[in-house]
Amino acid sequence: MVYTNGKRVLELSDCEAVVTSCSYQLRYLTGIEAENGLAIVDKTGTTLYTDMRYMEAAEKFLQGTDVTPVLYNQEEILKRLSACESVGISFQQTTHAEYLTLLEAGVKLQNIDAAYDKAMSVKNDWELDNIAKACEIAELAFNALLPQIKEGMTETEVAALLEYEMRKRGAQGLSFDTIVAFGAHAAVPHHETGLTKLKFGDEILIDFGCRVNGYCSDITRTFLFGDDGKHETFKKAYACVLKAHELAKEKITAGMTGKEADGIARNYLQEQGYGGLFTHSLGHGIGLNVHEYPAVSPKSDKVLENGMVFSDEPGVYEAGKYGIRIEDTVTLKNGKVHSFMSLTDRELVIL
Amino acid sequence: MVYTNGKRVLELSDCEAVVTSCSYQLRYLTGIEAENGLAIVDKTGTTLYTDMRYMEAAEKFLQGTDVTPVLYNQEEILKRLSACESVGISFQQTTHAEYLTLLEAGVKLQNIDAAYDKAMSVKNDWELDNIAKACEIAELAFNALLPQIKEGMTETEVAALLEYEMRKRGAQGLSFDTIVAFGAHAAVPHHETGLTKLKFGDEILIDFGCRVNGYCSDITRTFLFGDDGKHETFKKAYACVLKAHELAKEKITAGMTGKEADGIARNYLQEQGYGGLFTHSLGHGIGLNVHEYPAVSPKSDKVLENGMVFSDEPGVYEAGKYGIRIEDTVTLKNGKVHSFMSLTDRELVIL
Repeated sequence: MVYTNGKRVLELSDCEAVVTSCSYQLRYLTGIEAENGLAIVDKTGTTLYTDMRYMEAAEKFLQGTDVTPVLYNQEEILKRLSACESVGISFQQTTHAEYLTLLEAGVKLQNIDAAYDKAMSVKNDWELDNIAKACEIAELAFNALLPQIKEGMTETEVAALLEYEMRKRGAQGLSFDTIVAFGAHAAVPHHETGLTKLKFGDEILIDFGCRVNGYCSDITRTFLFGDDGKHETFKKAYACVLKAHELAKEKITAGMTGKEADGIARNYLQEQGYGGLFTHSLGHGIGLNVHEYPAVSPKSDKVLENGMVFSDEPGVYEAGKYGIRIEDTVTLKNGKVHSFMSLTDRELVIL
Repeated sequence: MVYTNGKRVLELSDCEAVVTSCSYQLRYLTGIEAENGLAIVDKTGTTLYTDMRYMEAAEKFLQGTDVTPVLYNQEEILKRLSACESVGISFQQTTHAEYLTLLEAGVKLQNIDAAYDKAMSVKNDWELDNIAKACEIAELAFNALLPQIKEGMTETEVAALLEYEMRKRGAQGLSFDTIVAFGAHAAVPHHETGLTKLKFGDEILIDFGCRVNGYCSDITRTFLFGDDGKHETFKKAYACVLKAHELAKEKITAGMTGKEADGIARNYLQEQGYGGLFTHSLGHGIGLNVHEYPAVSPKSDKVLENGMVFSDEPGVYEAGKYGIRIEDTVTLKNGKVHSFMSLTDRELVIL
C-alpha cells in the first residue's frame, strides 16, 4: 500500500524522475528510513540506495514490492539522474550542499514541494490505520498514567512515566519530547519540562504523542490535581476552550480553507472575551511529521480535503496564571471531522 | 559560557555576519532551540528572532548574556543581512529554499560549514559538563535496568524501561530511539526494536543515550541473559571486541587522524580474524548531534584534537548468529583518551 506513494509523487511532479535523501520523504516513498539513504522514483519503479547496515532489513521488508534496495553508489546515482529530462526534488527538504552536487553533475532540477504537500497531506488507508494506532496507544497510556500521578512528582517524572506507558504498548518512538507543565508553567505553550514538583491544587497540561511506522499522534489534555477552590477563572476558561474545540469538530467541513476552519474556534473564543489569549493556530497537518502541510491557521488559504489529518487544538493562556489547551488528532471523512481520540476525557478531570 | 560560541563561529567564518535557522546551530549560538527561530551573529552580538510562544522563556533564559531575543520579522532580517559585505551560512544545514530567499534579497552568501565543524567539534567546559551528565544518567539508568530484565519481556518493553530510567533521572530526551536487540537481531547494527520476546540464553545488545541541555551521550553494551552453554564463539569474539575497545582508549592520542585512530581497533580485529566482520567505523563525533564531525573512520584524514568528543565503538557481526558492540563516549584531554563512562561493566555480564 505504501508503495503507491512513489508513483503518486512522480505523477504529481510532472518530472521524469524524483530524488530525495530527506528521511521522512524516504519513508514516504519506500516505507524505510535509512540514514544516508537516497531514493529515486521513475516509471520503472523505486530504487532505494542504502548502505550495508540497512541492506538485510531492507531486502526483507521490501520483498514483493516495487521498491528495490541497492548499495549506495554516488557515481551511478548522478549518472542516472543526469540522463533525465527533468528531476524533481523538494527545495524545502534538500540542503543547498546537495542541490549544488546535483547541479554540478548536470542534473536538470525542478522544485516539487507542492507535489509532496498534495500527495502526503491526503492519507491512504494504511496511513490512517497507523495514525489511529498511534492515537490509541497515546490515549491508553494517558489513562494508565493518571492513577500514578502523586504529589511531589516532578514534571520530568510524569513525562517519563507517560513515555514508558506508550513505549510499553508498542510505540516505536515519540512524536516529540513530551511537554508536562504544572501550575502557571501551562501558560507557556512550549514549556520545557523540568524539575518542578507537583503540589495539591496545581493544574497539569500534558502535550504528547507517539509514532507507529513513522506516523504520529498528537494530543493535549489539561486537568487539575485536586481542587483547592481557587480555580474559578480556570474553570470558566476551560469550558470555553472545550466548547471551541467541539465547535471546530462539528462545523469544519471538507472544502473549507484553513482560515475558515480556524475562524470557527477563534470567533467563538473572541466572543467569549478570550480573543487575545488564543495565541496560536487552531491546528496543523499531522503524518510522518508532527507538523506538516496543511496549516489550519488565520493565514492559510489551503483547502481542507477528505483524508487529511490535522490537530484541533484551541488554547487560552494567561501569562503567570494558567494555560489551557485541548487537542485531538482528527481527519476528514465524507466531508466531516472524525476524531481519532475516543478513550480519554475532554471534560475537565479533577484527580 | 555558551554565549562565546557565536563570537567563535563569526571569527572562524571570516564574514561580517553569520545567520542560521537550523535547530542545533541555533542552540549552539544562543543556547535555545526555537521552532521557526533564526539567529544573526555580528560584531555587536547575537540576535535571536523567535515568535511569541518562545519569547517569555527566551527573555528569562538569556538575561545577562550577549544574546538578545526579538520578535521574528522577515523584512528586518533580510534588510540587515543584505546590508552586510558577506554573510556566512552552512550549506549543509540550509535548505535550498531558504538559500534562494536570501539570494533573491541580495544577501552575499558564503559557505561556513568548515567554521561550524571547527568550532563545534572542540567542546568548552560547559559543553563537556553537559555530555558528562548525559553519560552519567545513561549509565545509572542502565544499571537500574539490569535487575528488571525478565524472561518473556519484549525488546520494546526493555527499551521503554531504560528510557523511563533515563528520563526519571533528568534526561531531557533521547539521543535517538533506543536500540534493543535480542539474540541474532544483534547482528543487525541498526536493528529496529520490536516485539520479539526474551528467552533464556539470549544475548542482548542495547545502544542508547540521552540529552542534557541538547548534548548527547551514546553508549552500547552487549551481555547475556543467562548462559545456555552455546556461547563459546560469542565469548571469544566478545573478548576480542573488548580488547579492541580498550586498545583504542590506550593508544589514540591528540594529533592522530581519524583513519589512524580507527586503524588501532581495526588492525587488531583483523589480526584476530574478525576483519570482515567489523562492518562500520570505530567512531563519530558527539555533541548537540549524536553523529557529527569528526568521523573516526578508515576514510577520515581529520585530525583529532583535545576537547573533541567521539565514540569508541568497535563491533563484530556474524549475520544470523550474533553481534557485539562495546561503545563509550570519550574525549581527548592532555592528548589522551578520557572516557565519560565509569559506572557500567565492559567485561561480559551474564544476568
